[in-house]
Amino acid sequence: MSLIEKTVSGILPSDQTWREKAKERILDLTMPPWALGRLLDLAVDIAGMTRSLNPPLDRRTVVIMAGDHGVANAGVSPYPQAVTMLMIRNFAEIAGAGINVLARQSGAKVRIADIGVAGDLSELFKKNLVIDKHIANGTNNMLEGPAMSREQARRSIEAGIELALESSSDSDLLATGEMGIGNTTPSSAIVSVLCSIPPNLVTCRGAGLDEEGRLKKAEIVEKAIDLNKPDKNDPLDVLAKVGGFEIGAIAGFILGAASLRIPVIIDGFISTAGALVAHEISPSSADYIIASHQSVERGHQHALAKLGKKALLSLDLRLGEGSGAALAMHFVEASMRIINEMATWEKAGIVRK
Amino acid sequence: MSLIEKTVSGILPSDQTWREKAKERILDLTMPPWALGRLLDLAVDIAGMTRSLNPPLDRRTVVIMAGDHGVANAGVSPYPQAVTMLMIRNFAEIAGAGINVLARQSGAKVRIADIGVAGDLSELFKKNLVIDKHIANGTNNMLEGPAMSREQARRSIEAGIELALESSSDSDLLATGEMGIGNTTPSSAIVSVLCSIPPNLVTCRGAGLDEEGRLKKAEIVEKAIDLNKPDKNDPLDVLAKVGGFEIGAIAGFILGAASLRIPVIIDGFISTAGALVAHEISPSSADYIIASHQSVERGHQHALAKLGKKALLSLDLRLGEGSGAALAMHFVEASMRIINEMATWEKAGIVRK
Repeated sequence: MSLIEKTVSGILPSDQTWREKAKERILDLTMPPWALGRLLDLAVDIAGMTRSLNPPLDRRTVVIMAGDHGVANAGVSPYPQAVTMLMIRNFAEIAGAGINVLARQSGAKVRIADIGVAGDLSELFKKNLVIDKHIANGTNNMLEGPAMSREQARRSIEAGIELALESSSDSDLLATGEMGIGNTTPSSAIVSVLCSIPPNLVTCRGAGLDEEGRLKKAEIVEKAIDLNKPDKNDPLDVLAKVGGFEIGAIAGFILGAASLRIPVIIDGFISTAGALVAHEISPSSADYIIASHQSVERGHQHALAKLGKKALLSLDLRLGEGSGAALAMHFVEASMRIINEMATWEKAGIVRK
Repeated sequence: MSLIEKTVSGILPSDQTWREKAKERILDLTMPPWALGRLLDLAVDIAGMTRSLNPPLDRRTVVIMAGDHGVANAGVSPYPQAVTMLMIRNFAEIAGAGINVLARQSGAKVRIADIGVAGDLSELFKKNLVIDKHIANGTNNMLEGPAMSREQARRSIEAGIELALESSSDSDLLATGEMGIGNTTPSSAIVSVLCSIPPNLVTCRGAGLDEEGRLKKAEIVEKAIDLNKPDKNDPLDVLAKVGGFEIGAIAGFILGAASLRIPVIIDGFISTAGALVAHEISPSSADYIIASHQSVERGHQHALAKLGKKALLSLDLRLGEGSGAALAMHFVEASMRIINEMATWEKAGIVRK
């Protein structure tokens, strides 16, 4: 049995009994029924994931999966591909990126994994600043053929599973981040195919295109889909033909977390594209996902709807890196503090009618 | 010069120079332009309020202003008035309410002030668990006449100013909370009058009415306005005729915070009704307000729009107490960490085109 098959076979749906226990507990707390709204929904979700009303959540890790894209130089991003490498140095050596700052505030470690960066990071591997899961120096240009081979797609998912398994030894709560210049383009293609929505309706401005640039990007997504004809019923085929290495790793990371019953917070559009791939491979994996924020990317809401998720935050974020996921950790903590620290009516000496 | 006049005379608009400095700094940080969206807008707002790019924000205080309402027994709430007193004990003695839990997570102190509770809290005053700003044992029933005298309305605002001044000695960041069974009813009346919107469109289900109860509540709000004829151009008149003691104190608290240039996070619907009163007294006071969450109360969005604010969170909260304000503190901290801790492009060694 392959690592993917083995992992998928270990994924059970969220536990209904623990969800009910959480609901009962919440209705005993000193507030009008469900007065903390979605924070309470989240507490119920987490109880169902972890089979506990008081799971450990203090050890938190954001894993940034990095990869480059052959399509990046087709004008889909205002930034050159080399920025992927430079930002990895910013994450790993300077700790000066947005995710470093927000993870620090949330008490989360940041790990960076090279899944398929176009460049040599061996120096950072040696210093243990970046994890080596390198598959290739970026994907092929999907305007000329498949982004990667089916075997590479499988390998990228396995890399993500390995990262989840490795992180589980010191993490109670996981989050997905990513870095890869151009990666909203394959994400748009994946969402278009898996949600059956035309490219123009899921393609947005990424890191800063104008409307003309956006239309060109949507055309590129459409061309890549027309050329490669990904089979929407075969998630590995979609990932291989119009995906990216880091997106496959995100899918695998979610599968791994789900198999371990560890809640996994997804970030924005690219993470959600990865989550869609995971969901196609194992629908129950979505039970372990917490959707952190609604990105400004227009495809994002379609993708979240397909997963049956509603984001906790809507702050017009479009940074990626895991930034929204790190912010959502405050709410994860809040939801479980509520269920564990609030007084019951009985304790507060208040008799309900 | 009265305390209110003196306070208002000390309120200056937000500082445009510091707002510009914040924008410049943000555009130097290693991310696509404005990629952290509303978190960056918030950083600019805070720089303008505090005249600093790195203001102290660690010492945080939520002040819960409590009052009772003569209208409470007219069927506007599923809870009896006595629950106000019981919840104050929960805040002060058990520390088991939602706000206690969420403030603890946010590193905020909780202070409770009796502005006009229908009951004797002298025992808790003596223990320094509740601050004595008691004006009366609840308002009068606004279905029979004005909720309070003009002098009492003035006194409630002064109480809030005093609470802000007293809190300023050990607080860099303030937040408003409230407790008072029935207090969405006067809040609906205030929002209806000050926003010129019919009561039915601003009145919602409060702590748990059904649609029939909501319609009855809207009728009560309409009757109270028809009977008392508050002058929408005179905020003290509106507060006196259809307001509440804790709502006046919230208004004063905001005026006090604004005069001290301390950012003040407002909670939900009731806090926003108080903010509207403050805004009518001193339009510039709104410059110092951070709107934490969009409540499920339908009047809330109208009130926020009138203040020119957009809430940071939308989590279907309807607890009050300051719970949304405490949650928003994480974002206030995040916004200023971003501006101070992120690397610039220069520091990261990345040359921009």
